[in-house]
Amino acid sequence: MRKSIATVSVSGTLTEKLEAIAAAGFDGVEIFENDLLACPLPPERIRALAADLGLSIDMYQPFRDFEAMPTLDLRRAERKFRLMERLGADLLLVCSNVSPQAIDDDELAAEQLRLLAERAADHGIRIAYEALAWGRHVNEYLHAWRIVRMADHPDLGTCLDSFHILSRGSDPIGIEAIPGEKIFFLQLADAPLLAMDVLQWSRHYRCFPGQGNFDLAGLVASVLETGYAGPLSLEVFNDHFRQADTGRTARDGMRSLIALEADLHGVAHPVVPAGFAFAELADTGSLGGLLGALGFARTGRHATKPVELWAQGGARLLLNATGADPALIAIGLDSPDPAGAAKHAESLLSPVLPRERAPKEARLEAVAAPDGTEIFFCDDAWLGDFSPSEPVAGTITGIDHVALTQPWHHFDEAALFYRSVLGLRPQESLELPDPYGLLRSKAMSTQDGRVRMVLNLAQVGAADIPWQHVALACDDVIGMARRLRAERPESLLPIPDNYYDDLEARHEVDPELRHLGVLYDRDEHGEFLHLYTVTVGRVFFEIVQRTGGYQGYGAVNAPIRLAAQHAGGHH
Amino acid sequence: MRKSIATVSVSGTLTEKLEAIAAAGFDGVEIFENDLLACPLPPERIRALAADLGLSIDMYQPFRDFEAMPTLDLRRAERKFRLMERLGADLLLVCSNVSPQAIDDDELAAEQLRLLAERAADHGIRIAYEALAWGRHVNEYLHAWRIVRMADHPDLGTCLDSFHILSRGSDPIGIEAIPGEKIFFLQLADAPLLAMDVLQWSRHYRCFPGQGNFDLAGLVASVLETGYAGPLSLEVFNDHFRQADTGRTARDGMRSLIALEADLHGVAHPVVPAGFAFAELADTGSLGGLLGALGFARTGRHATKPVELWAQGGARLLLNATGADPALIAIGLDSPDPAGAAKHAESLLSPVLPRERAPKEARLEAVAAPDGTEIFFCDDAWLGDFSPSEPVAGTITGIDHVALTQPWHHFDEAALFYRSVLGLRPQESLELPDPYGLLRSKAMSTQDGRVRMVLNLAQVGAADIPWQHVALACDDVIGMARRLRAERPESLLPIPDNYYDDLEARHEVDPELRHLGVLYDRDEHGEFLHLYTVTVGRVFFEIVQRTGGYQGYGAVNAPIRLAAQHAGGHH
Repeated sequence: MRKSIATVSVSGTLTEKLEAIAAAGFDGVEIFENDLLACPLPPERIRALAADLGLSIDMYQPFRDFEAMPTLDLRRAERKFRLMERLGADLLLVCSNVSPQAIDDDELAAEQLRLLAERAADHGIRIAYEALAWGRHVNEYLHAWRIVRMADHPDLGTCLDSFHILSRGSDPIGIEAIPGEKIFFLQLADAPLLAMDVLQWSRHYRCFPGQGNFDLAGLVASVLETGYAGPLSLEVFNDHFRQADTGRTARDGMRSLIALEADLHGVAHPVVPAGFAFAELADTGSLGGLLGALGFARTGRHATKPVELWAQGGARLLLNATGADPALIAIGLDSPDPAGAAKHAESLLSPVLPRERAPKEARLEAVAAPDGTEIFFCDDAWLGDFSPSEPVAGTITGIDHVALTQPWHHFDEAALFYRSVLGLRPQESLELPDPYGLLRSKAMSTQDGRVRMVLNLAQVGAADIPWQHVALACDDVIGMARRLRAERPESLLPIPDNYYDDLEARHEVDPELRHLGVLYDRDEHGEFLHLYTVTVGRVFFEIVQRTGGYQGYGAVNAPIRLAAQHAGGHH
Repeated sequence: MRKSIATVSVSGTLTEKLEAIAAAGFDGVEIFENDLLACPLPPERIRALAADLGLSIDMYQPFRDFEAMPTLDLRRAERKFRLMERLGADLLLVCSNVSPQAIDDDELAAEQLRLLAERAADHGIRIAYEALAWGRHVNEYLHAWRIVRMADHPDLGTCLDSFHILSRGSDPIGIEAIPGEKIFFLQLADAPLLAMDVLQWSRHYRCFPGQGNFDLAGLVASVLETGYAGPLSLEVFNDHFRQADTGRTARDGMRSLIALEADLHGVAHPVVPAGFAFAELADTGSLGGLLGALGFARTGRHATKPVELWAQGGARLLLNATGADPALIAIGLDSPDPAGAAKHAESLLSPVLPRERAPKEARLEAVAAPDGTEIFFCDDAWLGDFSPSEPVAGTITGIDHVALTQPWHHFDEAALFYRSVLGLRPQESLELPDPYGLLRSKAMSTQDGRVRMVLNLAQVGAADIPWQHVALACDDVIGMARRLRAERPESLLPIPDNYYDDLEARHEVDPELRHLGVLYDRDEHGEFLHLYTVTVGRVFFEIVQRTGGYQGYGAVNAPIRLAAQHAGGHH
């Protein structure tokens, strides 16, 4: 299907927007009126620029407060039609009236829209009438369609906007009542579920399909059922996108439409990872001692690179002597089809990483995540580069999850990347109080829970450490804590006694937790024991033990952990 | 009255919070549980620290989901009482139950609260029961009071929270039905009027009294009517405050209580400025030419400092050769009582600026605004330092308003400063689309409109120029524009033709506006003509003409102006 985007969805001047939109591979654009008004180029030049860039101008928008008025005003519309002729746009979006003067009279609305369509037809222009979710009298998409049908003019149709439909809780299945040729345009936006005024929600929190909570594939399926043959067009108002890099946002929008199309065609996500193969950490020599204390052993060295393999049970960590401060730089995922996974990632516009390798080394497929973390798709061949000995046995059994702090204006992009490229499903989203701000956090995992990720949103403005961590699954956190406390107490993040006073008021727990600095949570499924190491560079380790079917990440304890980290749990 | 603040209202560790709160002059604190849990100090040490700092611990909070439960749980409460004994706190806040298990039964709630109060009394502790605005069954303050009265225990009273009362639209006059001795505590927070879920509103957007839209003085007056003798205590949850400087936020909270007390005592704002005396600009020699083109003349030089006076009609601008790039550095306000105005500002914790002066120079009273702009309170004596000639006659008659861009985390502080220190009243608040983000803007003015200010909020994160501007009132903007276009066209900000196509579609306007680059707006009172110069350094000038009773600032045109400025209207 053709792919389009409204210019309001990205930041910059109109020229910057058009160039970025074309570079991202879109076929067309909706020109948002304010972008045109603020542009120093005359409409003819904008038309030529779009044509040079290979972009069709699919719609000019919005035209407000027209229908169902006490007196018909065609003068303003005539001006816009002349402008659209200069611009080469032949479809005008008319939003349902929000004016207090508007009359609640469908026949009047239909009559005035019919007159508008007649006048538009003289200019070769068609009218797409849309119900705004906050329209004064018309705010349901079926109501707008009723008026369009009543007006009965070939150049008048309806425009559907997923936000206006789904934000009101309307069922999109009614779309199938509309003949496809009367749906003149389809605008798509997702949004997180927020309990707020719908106008504010729309103007600040829309996002690209797959970044929010709406079922866009279901809505689009109903639209396609009607025979609609127009473009899928993104129309997003988002405070972060308004400030973010224009080209990057446009590419992210394109990624969202590619992923949506794949969903529509019932393409199951082709290559869902089966687990964590490894986590790779930049190191300057300070991490080995800590890993040793956790029971890891160095079980291999890379044949040609300054990379060591440390392993225990099913957990494998690579220490890469890049010279940079300790940080998580790459994640290896066990993939049933590494080449297919990389190809899928590339189809979703993820940058494929070049991989220099010595003649005998394993071929590794890798892409860059939005924050620069390298994501490797692995079969077992990579281990051959390390000639590893057997992993030592211990209580650590594998990697439970990896937590990455995202730059604040790329949080939605990262969520879409992990969802569309890796097939992770969004779980809980939280806001956690930190002594110096609120931390937003979003958990994602594969359906089987073998790959779990936590995305944290870096604080805006305030000085802030982009911590990352690797959580290691352990079948005896208490034993691990005893050993660390005895052998290497300085590596444990100190947890305040006051936490345990409160914990013991809430739950009956083993008094040894307090002595060991082990944190505790439970949900209706089971229990969660966890402890933290101090931070080295940007990175720390969490040791976690899930019992029963506990599904969370101990979020209730995160404020305690964050405060302890700020208080100086660094090395 | 005693002044208190909840530790959650400011950022930092508990130790940092207590130190900052004491330094700001508060008498007491509410200890917020999460702050204590995350603190490595035992309760006895926290108690000693507060005592050393001269702070009483007025309340420990919150204790949640206790009353009207199927089974009474006093075990958790007992733990908290023991903690409070160690902490030296004798008042516990119990919030109305939000648990789905809570039963809608006032008698059960009263009975369980009475048992809690009995147990508390054994520890010398009292219970303050508060209706959360989102409580499951109890969410109105009078309902909480009904239950407290039903329980009828001397150690059980109610806690009133202005946010929980006013956010629901409840009338605070009902407070006068409660005997003062049964109001155990009063928490104060203001908030902007937002159409959103009350829980989200409360957790992210509370602010200090005077920064939002609630009538706190009216509510507190009703509380005092009852004979309440406890503290005024601030309890604010605000995303910005969580990230801002601890000491600065605490001082701002204290300022809000001082201003609130003055309102309560019916103290009219003592010294409202009568107009703009001058605006002072840092300059490196580039502004004089522009001012000359606008019809200003240099009419004086400071006796001892490198400062020139440029004047026209009632508008006076000082150019200060500080060597810094052009920027607005000071605002002079005509004051009926400069010393009184400075004293009032100082009582509101504004930093009074030292003023070195030569023996013969006028004494000038000045304070620093939150963004560092110097605010001078003037009578006519300051002009003596410049031995000015008569101002030239021209079409510019005075300073209409001054617009300042505020650092993003000090926007609320600035609004409170201009309201409490200068007596300005908040007018419209707007969000204006800029090519690279949304710009928040708040207008304020004296009641007579002689001093108008616009506070703009700097973008978060994105690269951004903290523009400031001086808007000059003119009685012939068209004539001014003709002259500039003829004599100095490069000094005019170019306005796109597309703007005029739209303007002419909306209004019948003089076609010459397009040629001259003059912008237009109107409201129900009158019309507004305005034009902009290009930006020099951080500063630009706007020339405005109000006809009829137009009250706004041409906000509808701001996106056009912002885009033109980004497009390169700099010199």
